[in-house]
Amino acid sequence: MSEFTTKDEPALDAGLLSPVRAGTPVEAATGDAAWLQAMLDAEAALARAQARLGTLPGPAAAAITAAARAERLDVRRLALAARETANPVVGLVQAFTAQVAADDPAAAEYVHRGSTSQDILDTGAMLVAARALDLVLADLDRTAAALAGLAREHRDTAMAGRTLTLHAVPTTFGLKAAGWRQLVLDSAERLRRVRDGGLPVSLGGAAGTLAGYLEYARIDGGIADADLGDYLDRLTAAYADETGLARPRLPWHALRTPIADLAAALAHTAAALGKLAADVQVLARTEIGEAAEPGPAGRGASSAMPHKRNPVLATLIRSAALQVPVLAAGLTQCLSTEDERSGGAWHAEWLLLRECLRLAGGAAHTAVELAEGLTVRPERMRANLDLTDGQVVTERLAAVLAPRIGKAQARQALSRASALAAEQGRPLLGILAELPELAGAFADGEPAALLDPAGYTGAAGLLVDRALGEPS
Amino acid sequence: MSEFTTKDEPALDAGLLSPVRAGTPVEAATGDAAWLQAMLDAEAALARAQARLGTLPGPAAAAITAAARAERLDVRRLALAARETANPVVGLVQAFTAQVAADDPAAAEYVHRGSTSQDILDTGAMLVAARALDLVLADLDRTAAALAGLAREHRDTAMAGRTLTLHAVPTTFGLKAAGWRQLVLDSAERLRRVRDGGLPVSLGGAAGTLAGYLEYARIDGGIADADLGDYLDRLTAAYADETGLARPRLPWHALRTPIADLAAALAHTAAALGKLAADVQVLARTEIGEAAEPGPAGRGASSAMPHKRNPVLATLIRSAALQVPVLAAGLTQCLSTEDERSGGAWHAEWLLLRECLRLAGGAAHTAVELAEGLTVRPERMRANLDLTDGQVVTERLAAVLAPRIGKAQARQALSRASALAAEQGRPLLGILAELPELAGAFADGEPAALLDPAGYTGAAGLLVDRALGEPS
Amino acid sequence: MSEFTTKDEPALDAGLLSPVRAGTPVEAATGDAAWLQAMLDAEAALARAQARLGTLPGPAAAAITAAARAERLDVRRLALAARETANPVVGLVQAFTAQVAADDPAAAEYVHRGSTSQDILDTGAMLVAARALDLVLADLDRTAAALAGLAREHRDTAMAGRTLTLHAVPTTFGLKAAGWRQLVLDSAERLRRVRDGGLPVSLGGAAGTLAGYLEYARIDGGIADADLGDYLDRLTAAYADETGLARPRLPWHALRTPIADLAAALAHTAAALGKLAADVQVLARTEIGEAAEPGPAGRGASSAMPHKRNPVLATLIRSAALQVPVLAAGLTQCLSTEDERSGGAWHAEWLLLRECLRLAGGAAHTAVELAEGLTVRPERMRANLDLTDGQVVTERLAAVLAPRIGKAQARQALSRASALAAEQGRPLLGILAELPELAGAFADGEPAALLDPAGYTGAAGLLVDRALGEPS
Amino acid sequence: MSEFTTKDEPALDAGLLSPVRAGTPVEAATGDAAWLQAMLDAEAALARAQARLGTLPGPAAAAITAAARAERLDVRRLALAARETANPVVGLVQAFTAQVAADDPAAAEYVHRGSTSQDILDTGAMLVAARALDLVLADLDRTAAALAGLAREHRDTAMAGRTLTLHAVPTTFGLKAAGWRQLVLDSAERLRRVRDGGLPVSLGGAAGTLAGYLEYARIDGGIADADLGDYLDRLTAAYADETGLARPRLPWHALRTPIADLAAALAHTAAALGKLAADVQVLARTEIGEAAEPGPAGRGASSAMPHKRNPVLATLIRSAALQVPVLAAGLTQCLSTEDERSGGAWHAEWLLLRECLRLAGGAAHTAVELAEGLTVRPERMRANLDLTDGQVVTERLAAVLAPRIGKAQARQALSRASALAAEQGRPLLGILAELPELAGAFADGEPAALLDPAGYTGAAGLLVDRALGEPS
Repeated sequence: MSEFTTKDEPALDAGLLSPVRAGTPVEAATGDAAWLQAMLDAEAALARAQARLGTLPGPAAAAITAAARAERLDVRRLALAARETANPVVGLVQAFTAQVAADDPAAAEYVHRGSTSQDILDTGAMLVAARALDLVLADLDRTAAALAGLAREHRDTAMAGRTLTLHAVPTTFGLKAAGWRQLVLDSAERLRRVRDGGLPVSLGGAAGTLAGYLEYARIDGGIADADLGDYLDRLTAAYADETGLARPRLPWHALRTPIADLAAALAHTAAALGKLAADVQVLARTEIGEAAEPGPAGRGASSAMPHKRNPVLATLIRSAALQVPVLAAGLTQCLSTEDERSGGAWHAEWLLLRECLRLAGGAAHTAVELAEGLTVRPERMRANLDLTDGQVVTERLAAVLAPRIGKAQARQALSRASALAAEQGRPLLGILAELPELAGAFADGEPAALLDPAGYTGAAGLLVDRALGEPS
Repeated sequence: MSEFTTKDEPALDAGLLSPVRAGTPVEAATGDAAWLQAMLDAEAALARAQARLGTLPGPAAAAITAAARAERLDVRRLALAARETANPVVGLVQAFTAQVAADDPAAAEYVHRGSTSQDILDTGAMLVAARALDLVLADLDRTAAALAGLAREHRDTAMAGRTLTLHAVPTTFGLKAAGWRQLVLDSAERLRRVRDGGLPVSLGGAAGTLAGYLEYARIDGGIADADLGDYLDRLTAAYADETGLARPRLPWHALRTPIADLAAALAHTAAALGKLAADVQVLARTEIGEAAEPGPAGRGASSAMPHKRNPVLATLIRSAALQVPVLAAGLTQCLSTEDERSGGAWHAEWLLLRECLRLAGGAAHTAVELAEGLTVRPERMRANLDLTDGQVVTERLAAVLAPRIGKAQARQALSRASALAAEQGRPLLGILAELPELAGAFADGEPAALLDPAGYTGAAGLLVDRALGEPS
Repeated sequence: MSEFTTKDEPALDAGLLSPVRAGTPVEAATGDAAWLQAMLDAEAALARAQARLGTLPGPAAAAITAAARAERLDVRRLALAARETANPVVGLVQAFTAQVAADDPAAAEYVHRGSTSQDILDTGAMLVAARALDLVLADLDRTAAALAGLAREHRDTAMAGRTLTLHAVPTTFGLKAAGWRQLVLDSAERLRRVRDGGLPVSLGGAAGTLAGYLEYARIDGGIADADLGDYLDRLTAAYADETGLARPRLPWHALRTPIADLAAALAHTAAALGKLAADVQVLARTEIGEAAEPGPAGRGASSAMPHKRNPVLATLIRSAALQVPVLAAGLTQCLSTEDERSGGAWHAEWLLLRECLRLAGGAAHTAVELAEGLTVRPERMRANLDLTDGQVVTERLAAVLAPRIGKAQARQALSRASALAAEQGRPLLGILAELPELAGAFADGEPAALLDPAGYTGAAGLLVDRALGEPS
Repeated sequence: MSEFTTKDEPALDAGLLSPVRAGTPVEAATGDAAWLQAMLDAEAALARAQARLGTLPGPAAAAITAAARAERLDVRRLALAARETANPVVGLVQAFTAQVAADDPAAAEYVHRGSTSQDILDTGAMLVAARALDLVLADLDRTAAALAGLAREHRDTAMAGRTLTLHAVPTTFGLKAAGWRQLVLDSAERLRRVRDGGLPVSLGGAAGTLAGYLEYARIDGGIADADLGDYLDRLTAAYADETGLARPRLPWHALRTPIADLAAALAHTAAALGKLAADVQVLARTEIGEAAEPGPAGRGASSAMPHKRNPVLATLIRSAALQVPVLAAGLTQCLSTEDERSGGAWHAEWLLLRECLRLAGGAAHTAVELAEGLTVRPERMRANLDLTDGQVVTERLAAVLAPRIGKAQARQALSRASALAAEQGRPLLGILAELPELAGAFADGEPAALLDPAGYTGAAGLLVDRALGEPS
């Protein structure tokens, strides 16, 4: 029997519908158990922060911290209870308080002291995000390193540059890989910016004024009115310190920039990895065959067709790339929340955020395997480059001819030559020799040299050097 | 310890982040266990259909059907295996075949006979959708019935009609409830249209030609080439019959209308219920107080504020309404799939479809409770209607005055009167009596009568009658 | 100088950024001038409807109708004025009343009698939609007819069926074209359902109660209270009749099903055409070359590369397919509107609806040209089908072998044979003859016959017949 | 007759359907005429850059620059021609070359030298974006300044803090305004990050290798192969310098981070301003009346109801907030582009980007007026705060009671008191005095003091000081 089923409750999500993240580290880091633990971590950190300021007894903070273990609570029961209050924290505080009370009755009085559901849920969400982003970033770093290796190795491997699906002019696989890497670096830069300073603790109390916290500070800690400003600053700092999160500029119950920033960076990540996947899928096509996915035993097997080795990694990544941008739009819209706490916009964020994290994270994890194991086939690239018998470098001919016979005339002649070559199924070289309007335009042997695709890769190699920060 | 956790695997989703559907019937009907069962049901139905046509031994079909029980498989293991093939069916067929073989080795040869992953997953998805839609529709029907009751009861309960957040002219609560009901009926109509004919079996084989099915029909059943057309029709009909699903016009591996239709109908449902929720939230505002949610013990409690009874049902519904339309957009985009099976667009559908089903279903389930338990406060409606001291019926005054002094002059006079009333904080009635440009425009006592908001609800009552199909 | 610029006002939109619809009929039918005219048509139809019921003088209705010409108004001035009221109707009514007054001062009193901005804008929007849908449907019908011709012509043209970008098993181009046609028929069916009954007049007055209309009916037409129900029904019917639109079940100012239905059907249309475009792009790839777009002089030219003939029609269609689903999500969300008229959700619809109409319409118009002119290359299809030297029919071999040596053994042997063929670069036929585990499994000459891809197209031809409604 | 119509071509977009941006500076800055000019600016800057490096004659660059005036071209004709090539640049280069040739035939040879459509369109798009962002940022700065003024002025103006639509605990209007300002600052920070370094020139040539540019550099400028790396760097720098745009890390034809970044920042802007709008709409409600929009003559007039002054500015802003996030999702998805230039994903960006710019820009422009003119009504805030007769500070009572009678007991007693107060319609103060479980819990007069809402605004004032960077 599955570990994800029980007698009474069937599995709701064991990853069956989302192979891009099934079993990846980010899946576990964003599951309900992880969220529950993060919210307990938030409660414990809050107690320790208050204890550091002397408004909560140290032993109580210690007892609260010791009790803050998700496995002591019944996550399903909390989920069901959340329907009564529209969020899981009310039930969590009750159940957690009972756990603390079982260990240390006096400490139970100090659970959630002065706090509010949103402070705990939002701080927990930021902890989940921070932990998930660490995993995603590690995977992006590995992906970028592997892509750098490919770019370096294939700096000068000529292949067809394709635009609107057709061969345009030559490029190199190195430049293509360098481009993929650049997008991965772009994603990582955006995620790092969020992780490093963009994930703040939530500390606002019932309506963002911290009134409950201050009231308890007065009552429990004897903080004088004149010292409340100082207390406010120190409490925020201590809470940030205990959680490892950032200090917010203002309580952000209704100022959802951290969520929107996460959404934007995660959408960039998934969609940018989707570019890598889309390209690998093109290169892997049976007719093109310029690249293949790594193929451990069993990978890519079809249930019907024994011969196939499907590009499953690219497929998984693309499945995430198609989902995260729309999920992220849902999160961004929640910026337009009303009042001091929205009746719905806040609640809509949770699932969307979790999916964005684990889909982008799953895609990044999958990309490591794809980038590190990609098989590149320079000989197929060269063979494909020769498919058009020289037409892939007509741009070069146009440039050479322009100063000799005029730009418009050059273009016209080459269009005619291309059309004739296509009609007659002959290489361009022969056609060029016959065209009366080009008589005398080329030196002997010049057309053959100009028509070598490998000689017209422009700055591809130099661009790879620039991108990799290497001397050219 | 939670039923949703195990020693080795923490809970991925116990509903903690989605209270709108936690514990609702549609949640269980769309969980991974339910999807797994539906895919097994698809395998079993396929075997029975083939057996009905004589191309598969009857006892084998019986053994396959008997073994098709999700609890005999490890859903987590299947989820993890799906990463190797980008879909869970390859692993499922292996594991299921082993289960059948354990019961009846000969029957194992006939599992998934001639089939392909997509036929099983898509047929399974349609079964999940059909079962979920039945639940959603039952909840929408109950909601509509409750709203009909409210509309009937409050046919003539006057309240402020509000446009752009301000009092405009009077309306009735009955008309408002009739409008909510109309939207619910609209959703139900769209979902029924999908359920009744829009959820087809998937039967295409590896690339939509049914070649594998026909090849086995030749080999196993001795079907002659001339009879293949007949066999094709009968197999499709038998499969549809065994599953209770519709017959497709063509194999739809890459023709994703059924998914797009589900997306559209579910987005309508969630967003239409969002209208009900948005209105209830307005009416529940502390300052307005014209309606309140049902309040069983504990419902709507705040973790910080003992006095609050939050409108949690509307909040939950709105949280779904904010999510489903963007998720549905992700599904609709997957219509633009390439080839005979997409490398990614198909795979992106599964999670999005599940979320659309369970969010819309959760919202519908929540709406039943909201509609059946809504407290309506006619006295608050009346008090609010009087807040503007008559300004809420200036439209009526304008209509009455227009033929007497001209439309433009009437409008100008009333604008001036409204402005004076606002400036001086006086009722409109007094101002009207003093305006020189209105001298003689009204009969004695006419303004007071005209200014009664309850007298200017237009066709509200008649519209309620029409909407409910009742004589007026 | 451009016709779209003036001395004072530069062109805001001449179609420069949206070639998919530039110059198409639906572009003109959805432009601001067309919307303005449709709103004037709504005003005129309302007056005529009231005149038919005797509550408005016939000559006034005639004068209002005669004056309702968009070219008499300054659309830019109305657009600028709309900022003062958040909608363009307030300014329109003023300007239009002045035009009517210039022709017939008495008639001016009857402009917009009892009406409200939303009735006019929504009715105008439905008129724009109805006119645009007629154009879209005509284009879809032509596209479907052209695709039917392709399906018929290529009923038995074998080609590689591709899944996850790789050759899977053979299919036919006829079946592919029949699938495209099916999607086009699906879109047309959904659009027709909306057009025929789903586009209602808007008739609600200030807050959806029709109070203004009824008040004027009393005053102008002497309608007795007891007759108001009858008047309500007849007015709605007359307005529907004058506009050619449907009768709504209830005033729909805040019940936005018609907009959501349009959004869903238009998203289906654009995204379904995106499937056609995606496939054509695959087939047009330089390496694949199985299809080419029609190429009139100049079409598909590149600014840099004289030899290219870009698949521009598919590109344009795909550009629309990528936009409409997200725009449609924006519209669907607006179902969750608050009050009797939303302060924003209504206003967000207009631009989104216009873009959905003209992008889907532009895509349909472009699809006609693509479908009618597509060049199909059966010889390239056959050549590509032979690329894998028989591996494309391993599924068939597996089926034949299964009853002979067992399903699992057959699969294993074929996987090994496929791997060897790939490793050694040899055709599968030779490998099969050498495999010890297959010794004696085949009759003489059987493998060669089984390996002919054209012999394994399954029910492709039959499915084409079924789809086209033709005898097989 | 409208300036936006002509005899032959009706107005496509005069702003009629989008009042949020009609007539705003950003509308003109993003119109087709502005895009055309920006693309011409890109062509001219490219020529000047090449001239600076000596590979293009200086007089030719001067002639090209002089001719680069949008009013010399027919934007509609270019739009129509774009259907032949799927982008407007091919036609633009032809038409522009003809204009240059008319002035200086020799210079015409140097138009678009070595370039490609995408370099011109993308560089033009970045110029449009840069110019639009300057306008948006100026408006955000003014909005933030106005909101700072409100925050300062109302630092201590107590009002109800509302959560899930109900009064929770008191806050201040100053803190609410400071929150709005923070979001505006967040948006501005994100837009500035994009503007300052995130808007690069596009310089890649046909497939991103710059091969055409380098070929011409060889031919026209005699640049030696060994110097091409240097030339590459200098050309990019010169082009960036001539346009004022950034230098890209790599040619970004298929690496669309700049577009995704714009999308994210603009979605943040519109959705964040949507928070301001949503709050203003709540405060403006007839029953709440705590704020009102500025009301110049005519603003907010209703076509039906003379007395209304609709909150039109908030309505306009919210209409943009509902649109931009989904449009931005469309742009983000286009990151997942294939090949060296996508056949569709690139083309889908243009319209979406323009709409995001002008909707966000229109919202920002509208927000200036709203923030600078907002009427705040402290007396209504106070009156509403007193509506619950003390219940709005039950949190405070709970905190005070917790150490005296225990947290759970305190909570229970207050819940009972609140329920009794609601049932009996009496102030909480009286109830508290009667509850046996609270006998002796309070000092004399303490409850009355504790129940003053203005005394329980927590750190609101301090937070305003912190946010404004002012000493408290």
